[in-house]
Amino acid sequence: MSAHLLSVDSLSRDYVDHLFDVARRMEPIAQRRKITRVLEGAVLGNLFFEASTRTRMSFHSAFSRLGGSVCDTTGFTFSSMAKGESLYDTSRVISGYVDAIVMRHPDLGSVAEFAAATHVPVINGGDGPGEHPSQALLDLYTINKEFERLGKALPGAHLLLTGDLRYGRTVHSLLKLLSLYPPMQITLVSPPGLEMPSELIDRAENAGHRVSQRDTLQADYSDVDVVYATRIQKERFTQEMVEGFSLSSDFSVDRAFLDQRCSTHTIAMHPLPRDSRPGANDLDVDLNDDPRLAIFRQTDNGIPVRMAIFATLMGVADTFDRDLRDVGWQPPHRIGVDDADFIALK
Amino acid sequence: MSAHLLSVDSLSRDYVDHLFDVARRMEPIAQRRKITRVLEGAVLGNLFFEASTRTRMSFHSAFSRLGGSVCDTTGFTFSSMAKGESLYDTSRVISGYVDAIVMRHPDLGSVAEFAAATHVPVINGGDGPGEHPSQALLDLYTINKEFERLGKALPGAHLLLTGDLRYGRTVHSLLKLLSLYPPMQITLVSPPGLEMPSELIDRAENAGHRVSQRDTLQADYSDVDVVYATRIQKERFTQEMVEGFSLSSDFSVDRAFLDQRCSTHTIAMHPLPRDSRPGANDLDVDLNDDPRLAIFRQTDNGIPVRMAIFATLMGVADTFDRDLRDVGWQPPHRIGVDDADFIALK
Amino acid sequence: MSAHLLSVDSLSRDYVDHLFDVARRMEPIAQRRKITRVLEGAVLGNLFFEASTRTRMSFHSAFSRLGGSVCDTTGFTFSSMAKGESLYDTSRVISGYVDAIVMRHPDLGSVAEFAAATHVPVINGGDGPGEHPSQALLDLYTINKEFERLGKALPGAHLLLTGDLRYGRTVHSLLKLLSLYPPMQITLVSPPGLEMPSELIDRAENAGHRVSQRDTLQADYSDVDVVYATRIQKERFTQEMVEGFSLSSDFSVDRAFLDQRCSTHTIAMHPLPRDSRPGANDLDVDLNDDPRLAIFRQTDNGIPVRMAIFATLMGVADTFDRDLRDVGWQPPHRIGVDDADFIALK
Repeated sequence: MSAHLLSVDSLSRDYVDHLFDVARRMEPIAQRRKITRVLEGAVLGNLFFEASTRTRMSFHSAFSRLGGSVCDTTGFTFSSMAKGESLYDTSRVISGYVDAIVMRHPDLGSVAEFAAATHVPVINGGDGPGEHPSQALLDLYTINKEFERLGKALPGAHLLLTGDLRYGRTVHSLLKLLSLYPPMQITLVSPPGLEMPSELIDRAENAGHRVSQRDTLQADYSDVDVVYATRIQKERFTQEMVEGFSLSSDFSVDRAFLDQRCSTHTIAMHPLPRDSRPGANDLDVDLNDDPRLAIFRQTDNGIPVRMAIFATLMGVADTFDRDLRDVGWQPPHRIGVDDADFIALK
Repeated sequence: MSAHLLSVDSLSRDYVDHLFDVARRMEPIAQRRKITRVLEGAVLGNLFFEASTRTRMSFHSAFSRLGGSVCDTTGFTFSSMAKGESLYDTSRVISGYVDAIVMRHPDLGSVAEFAAATHVPVINGGDGPGEHPSQALLDLYTINKEFERLGKALPGAHLLLTGDLRYGRTVHSLLKLLSLYPPMQITLVSPPGLEMPSELIDRAENAGHRVSQRDTLQADYSDVDVVYATRIQKERFTQEMVEGFSLSSDFSVDRAFLDQRCSTHTIAMHPLPRDSRPGANDLDVDLNDDPRLAIFRQTDNGIPVRMAIFATLMGVADTFDRDLRDVGWQPPHRIGVDDADFIALK
Repeated sequence: MSAHLLSVDSLSRDYVDHLFDVARRMEPIAQRRKITRVLEGAVLGNLFFEASTRTRMSFHSAFSRLGGSVCDTTGFTFSSMAKGESLYDTSRVISGYVDAIVMRHPDLGSVAEFAAATHVPVINGGDGPGEHPSQALLDLYTINKEFERLGKALPGAHLLLTGDLRYGRTVHSLLKLLSLYPPMQITLVSPPGLEMPSELIDRAENAGHRVSQRDTLQADYSDVDVVYATRIQKERFTQEMVEGFSLSSDFSVDRAFLDQRCSTHTIAMHPLPRDSRPGANDLDVDLNDDPRLAIFRQTDNGIPVRMAIFATLMGVADTFDRDLRDVGWQPPHRIGVDDADFIALK
């Protein structure tokens, strides 16, 4: 009925291209070099039935930058639901209070059920093992921007996805989203038992991508353009898996790996959070000052991408930059500077 | 000292009529067809010592629509109070931070105690078994609007209140509020042990209303204009009551009841949340697509009514619509559309 | 790198004087007699890893009054941190979402660690036993304003600090801040075992102040200008201390103490919350209607002081009052009225 963003599956190439164009035009506002009031008077219901400070703040900031107000709700239960209220009633009631809804929920499909009852746009902020479409969109937006900066192109690129490819929701959504785009080479590297589901591999291959699977990072990846690492999602393991599992340091994406196996133009991405504790063998902190580490440019990009999502769903994608105003003053340090600049400032 | 909204008891007929007039003028803003900045720079302290997502969001949205900012606080304890701080100190301190306060608290009378110490307007958002005046006001506002749509009038109308009339705070407040209005016929139908308190019946009768009590819905209610159903408040039962209690399906307000016992112009209201679980025998989900179900129009009306409460208490009821602006764009679906429209859109 | 407010130690006399000048110019906005949009489009990350409703609301309101939006986060753990995310990552990610950060954290030094990773201004809202610089600033601002009202001057003034001087974070910060100012007489009165740390006394004496210590309030304090009382911080006691401790009523600052031991121009301050329970012997509630009780003027002053902190750190201290607008209406009672006025209104 209304326009929602529930799943990567429903996206067309045209919509994604349009969204990225809008996101580019959003960047001056996202960095607060320009101000808009296009969503003045509008209210966002930012409903997190499951905690996610990062994602909640990102949507909150994106809506605020457009001039709107945000009503946050966090916590695992809603008071009314504990009294037997249906998702249908909750959704329909809140629809009368707000102009758009972002919802994260631990249960697969619950966001879609919520969206079915409402006449305002609903954005899926993650539904358990299901989808998290805005993350996939900001990931692809980041790859596009990084490639532009490096003089590269998406067609024919080589992407390496590594870590927990079985439970990592974001790599699933990213792989689906890539099916809209020209053929690329995709290498999947995971520990035994955490391989990418075969139906997703089939789907990527049917879209024309060349997919290969490996079980080690100790190989020549000098032609890889993007290493996309993911955290091991132990909280989704069975008890048996937890007991037997120990991630070998062979899977660590660190400075030595980028220096010795990849190239000076290979960028490293990660959906975050990464596990920085010793022995976690997640994306290593020794890359923190390395310009190839794109993870913070990636999260920075979440703001203009989410602003573009709001703008397209709420009908202001064509009008939002008609009356931009200057900030009129210069803060000590701009928001959204590149990490390269950021490092130079230290 | 300052003007507060603590109880239905303190309201005059003139104030309520004025409030409803203001609420009518608020509707274009509530539906975001128009924008105002009348409360720009103002801050609301939205203090929920007891969880109530629905009510908190409704006040939050109403204040935001007027151009103000909202500071939410939720949770059963405030950190300072755990260190021995009095309600007096908390109230006086917060009064220096904000321009208005909405407060829900589990203890009867605590909102009034809070209000006594402050010089900003305080609105009672529910104090345990006590009052919830904004709910009664939006209920009556809804009846007025529905009657207008149906060509009916309040004087001489027939209202049927059913369900848990003993513990249902909202039916108590509504009955009190009706005492300001011309004589009506009021029928009270409840299971044994959950009857309306006799002092409230006396009060309604003293105000001129004709009140009758029944113990079953299996009767002729074809001249009833409004069925106001309520959830059984088992959380307020004694242990003994819980064990012995089982709500007969005789008390279910469903499509069959409206079709067979009432008329095509009988509307069904409910303060929500309703219990949609099987066997709850609350207001039935089989009415969800029936235009007689007014419950979502009722919650939608909460926004303009609460906006009008803020406007009257904060002194902008006469000025808020002097400089309204158009939104300048049309969202995919308007907020606040009638359910009838809503259903037609499916 | 960026300008932060982490500790009283880093402040210069020039900065504090400038800040107080800015705060004075903020007062019409803090009381909502004037409106500014200088921080329109800006977002504050109001991060409370430890609950503090009062401080959170004060920063929230201050940022809102400047036209900005606030994203609150409360609770003892952040979801990402539970998955092994470092403070560095959290800080750097959030820096891409917001324009300024207020952070309270239970662990000493964690706010500074957070600030080291970010390129937006960070304000320490309290880090456990460490610092709470905005409280010290509003305390000194209050003393200045009270002295101005009473025709007094800071040089040569007599300040009495009493209560828990060992664990009271705010009296430590205030004493440090006073070292920037001309010599004063400072009397420290505490129960045995709760004395001011000697290094802080040395520091005050090195700055030229005349410091004396006493163990009772039963003495002549008729030349004291300010009595600054503090709550006994039992939550920081060792188990042994808790068992042996009982605060004598000799340490109670009440009306009798002010009347008999002090003067009609001695003001009473407190960082709040005060313990109003019987037998707590904290600052007594029998002073609630006494104009010498400055505690609510003190918390009121938190708004303009925190507005000035934002303005100086974000580069708008010179420009914020260029385009102030009138509210255009008069609320029933102004925010920020003096307690004297407040009492007169009852």
